[in-house]
Amino acid sequence: MPKVSREHVEARRAQILDGARRCFARFGYEGATVPRLEREIGLSHGAIFNYYRSKLDLFFALARSDHERFEAVWADEGFEALARVIAQEDPAWLGVYLEFHRLLRTDPAVARRWRSRRRDDDRHAGWLAQERAAGRIRSDVPEETLFAFLHTLLDGLVLARTAGVEVDVEPVVALVREALEPRKEGLAE
Amino acid sequence: MPKVSREHVEARRAQILDGARRCFARFGYEGATVPRLEREIGLSHGAIFNYYRSKLDLFFALARSDHERFEAVWADEGFEALARVIAQEDPAWLGVYLEFHRLLRTDPAVARRWRSRRRDDDRHAGWLAQERAAGRIRSDVPEETLFAFLHTLLDGLVLARTAGVEVDVEPVVALVREALEPRKEGLAE
Repeated sequence: MPKVSREHVEARRAQILDGARRCFARFGYEGATVPRLEREIGLSHGAIFNYYRSKLDLFFALARSDHERFEAVWADEGFEALARVIAQEDPAWLGVYLEFHRLLRTDPAVARRWRSRRRDDDRHAGWLAQERAAGRIRSDVPEETLFAFLHTLLDGLVLARTAGVEVDVEPVVALVREALEPRKEGLAE
Repeated sequence: MPKVSREHVEARRAQILDGARRCFARFGYEGATVPRLEREIGLSHGAIFNYYRSKLDLFFALARSDHERFEAVWADEGFEALARVIAQEDPAWLGVYLEFHRLLRTDPAVARRWRSRRRDDDRHAGWLAQERAAGRIRSDVPEETLFAFLHTLLDGLVLARTAGVEVDVEPVVALVREALEPRKEGLAE
């Protein structure tokens, strides 16, 4: 077997992931059969599964890459930037996550693996610490409540997108920004 | 054919809907095959489809009943009560809605029918008008922004529930309540 360069391996992986993402978005997770994956990727199943051992491995690799991208946006540009990114995502691809939720509910092994994957959540925790230190986010509400609130909003945006609902994200984001701002006994009775 | 009483018809419909809900929750929308529906409902497909013409009709009847229940809670007891109801819903049943979203995205006829069904949304609009008149909800943000915000939060709760994430709903609801309260230049610089 010829020795392949690192660049070649990387290019192949990118080709496989791009094709798999298109295939999942088009046919759904369950509907992305091996022949459809082969066609969309342009490689035989032997070549594909040489890089990723299973369809689940392919999906996990894509989910990990999304997760890292979203974490980076949140950590570097803030919550509002992430809300805008999600409002622009391909609804068909977001829909694959919804379908995947069913696997999470019904397959304990998949659920365990999914949970063990979540390692870099502290990146957006760093964002909150920094915003608080700068006095831009209130400190009178526990961190976990703020994150529960923000995660719920992001999940809601995902769900609306996949249902084809256009959410006008800017006014909603403005309301969230205000809810997070530090306050000094400012509420009317 | 014997004449059947209205009570009998109602009882039969309830039996069919209850069984169908259990069957959908257990096997998912796609997985709820006719034999499984027959078994869970305890009636032959002839009897079932005498009342509801198709699996889609069954699902729509259940979704309509949920929708009316949720609208009633929102209109009569407010947004917070509805958030608590959703936080208590069966995750398996909520998951059926996620699966159904894929049909909404991929089948224009289903999407049209789903949209035409939404008629009683003005019930929770009435709740907002009443809360504003009583001075309990701010009037400086457009109604549609408030509803986009609240619907996004509810959708996010649904998604978290179906993923098996436990959301501690009370602190989140308290944050939302505060975000909706009327204010008088109360934010710090």
